[in-house]
Amino acid sequence: MAVDEAGQSRPKVTITAIAQEAGVSVPTVSRVVNGRSDVAPETRAKVEDLLRRHGYQRRGTAGREGAGLIDLVFSDLDSPWAVEIIRGVEEVAHAAGMGTVVSATHGRAGATRQWLENLRDRASDGVILVTSALEPLLQKELRRLDVPIVVVDPAGSPALDAPTVGATNWAGGMAATEHLLELGHRRIGFIGGPMRLLCSRARMDGYRTALEAAGIPAVDELMVGGDFYHESGFTGAQKLLDLPEPPTAIFASSDQMALGAIEALRRRGLRVPDDVSVVGFDDLPEMRWSSPPLTTVRQPLAEMGKVAARTVLRQARGEELDSPRVELATELIVRHSSAAPARES
Amino acid sequence: MAVDEAGQSRPKVTITAIAQEAGVSVPTVSRVVNGRSDVAPETRAKVEDLLRRHGYQRRGTAGREGAGLIDLVFSDLDSPWAVEIIRGVEEVAHAAGMGTVVSATHGRAGATRQWLENLRDRASDGVILVTSALEPLLQKELRRLDVPIVVVDPAGSPALDAPTVGATNWAGGMAATEHLLELGHRRIGFIGGPMRLLCSRARMDGYRTALEAAGIPAVDELMVGGDFYHESGFTGAQKLLDLPEPPTAIFASSDQMALGAIEALRRRGLRVPDDVSVVGFDDLPEMRWSSPPLTTVRQPLAEMGKVAARTVLRQARGEELDSPRVELATELIVRHSSAAPARES
Repeated sequence: MAVDEAGQSRPKVTITAIAQEAGVSVPTVSRVVNGRSDVAPETRAKVEDLLRRHGYQRRGTAGREGAGLIDLVFSDLDSPWAVEIIRGVEEVAHAAGMGTVVSATHGRAGATRQWLENLRDRASDGVILVTSALEPLLQKELRRLDVPIVVVDPAGSPALDAPTVGATNWAGGMAATEHLLELGHRRIGFIGGPMRLLCSRARMDGYRTALEAAGIPAVDELMVGGDFYHESGFTGAQKLLDLPEPPTAIFASSDQMALGAIEALRRRGLRVPDDVSVVGFDDLPEMRWSSPPLTTVRQPLAEMGKVAARTVLRQARGEELDSPRVELATELIVRHSSAAPARES
Repeated sequence: MAVDEAGQSRPKVTITAIAQEAGVSVPTVSRVVNGRSDVAPETRAKVEDLLRRHGYQRRGTAGREGAGLIDLVFSDLDSPWAVEIIRGVEEVAHAAGMGTVVSATHGRAGATRQWLENLRDRASDGVILVTSALEPLLQKELRRLDVPIVVVDPAGSPALDAPTVGATNWAGGMAATEHLLELGHRRIGFIGGPMRLLCSRARMDGYRTALEAAGIPAVDELMVGGDFYHESGFTGAQKLLDLPEPPTAIFASSDQMALGAIEALRRRGLRVPDDVSVVGFDDLPEMRWSSPPLTTVRQPLAEMGKVAARTVLRQARGEELDSPRVELATELIVRHSSAAPARES
């Protein structure tokens, strides 16, 4: 029951009812509620008017005080970058006097359904989804729950019906490749991520564009596939080293793959960066401690968590967002795994 | 207000009142409430009787259904092992239909106080503290809040007034050293953690005992101090390598220090394990991907999280615990950073 200004309670109005009355679709009302800007001004005005008149309140903020909780949902908690995002979200939530509920769906429908049931049983002021493959079930059910949603999306998924926070993958791919070019490398190998993820494509396009801007054609034999995990960096580097003319530098588009490449080099008795330079992508905290310390492209994961938390809090307060998608800048971090190529003997 | 069997509400009784009536101290009542076994049977019976008669209910489980939330509190979320513990707690909580609220106190009184206020504003069924230095403020205030507490204590703190879950640090130190002895090493360096932490002392004692059992005296010059962080492993290894007769193997009592040692060796042009073997302690997930993959002693962090979650749930249900302190077994994981010593030339 919502309570109006006169203190009287009345039945809670649903977005479906608002959509019917406004003569628009449910997703449109949802977009207005979620502070998205891609709604025609006239439609927005009409919907906002109805929301106001019906004393519409998000489930998440039902009650004057709110639940005091933000939900942070991962597909899996198996990655060291999860803790970076948790750290960012927790910091903002903590400062706002709120708790951060961390969950994992493990990509299983059962676990997702159970999480949704838990969420229904207790209130939540907003949900931050961290996922490279947003499950359709989750997306649909969450829209029905009508709680503010933000997606932290390091993978760059296709357009979602919720505000998203990502990173500049293309610019990061450019920066890594330009760094190696500036050191004097001309034969630069690339180990890619899964091609179904937009972030993989963006990093690869950044690599290609940097090469082409330097007048060096991107050749297929220097570009090998991977899946962002360690093993694929190991095998990818082996493929590159088996070439008749192997590269003098490797840009692996994830840190784990970069470490796999370094291990492949070590097994062949090759030194990094003396014999081959390696650059990664992510800048997981542990990369400072790799041997040698890894040159890599930093994704500001904790910052992405902070922006997501601030965004979900703004939505919960009913504020309009500036943009449905925010991309935070990546940054090249030069450490000791990259150097000028060895001189030809 | 608690509700008695007749459905009548009455003022909530406090543990202080129970303690007065029973003629025992508040910590004693707290121990009974927390399911600790170190209370005289007679005293326990008296206290339990009073708790029952007064219809005592923990704040955490006030209300028939509970809050549906377990709180998991870290000093800091800056360590890759945090995500391991979160993973374990989340798995058990999730299966019990509960949410896991993750917080960090940053070792600051202000942040701790705010977290306590948040906790007071919303219910919690139990609190899991992960901390190497349990802040006195937190401990005192939590006792006042009267919510079930479990401490995940990788550091092995002195006796706490709450059930704790730790790991077998001494046995782990033994196992690491025995492994190097079995490979044929006789001069084994040790890089220790902060001596104020019991876990550091336990690992060092395990190292000493293994050496002495093999008839090799533990000599001071081979034992250098550290603080578990990377930099101290780097400088510690340098000290060992500067000895007139440097060790052929190094047991660094944390993974980060082991990586620091490997980097110090690399800088001197020494190869691991060909020239010097290195063994760590923790087995953070990333250690599989270090170059070379690290031989280390696994602390079962996710398991520790699971046991802590199960323990807090048992307490919330008012069940008695088997033991106030549980130590889960560590396990030696042999990878590629350890090998037989190079033959004397």
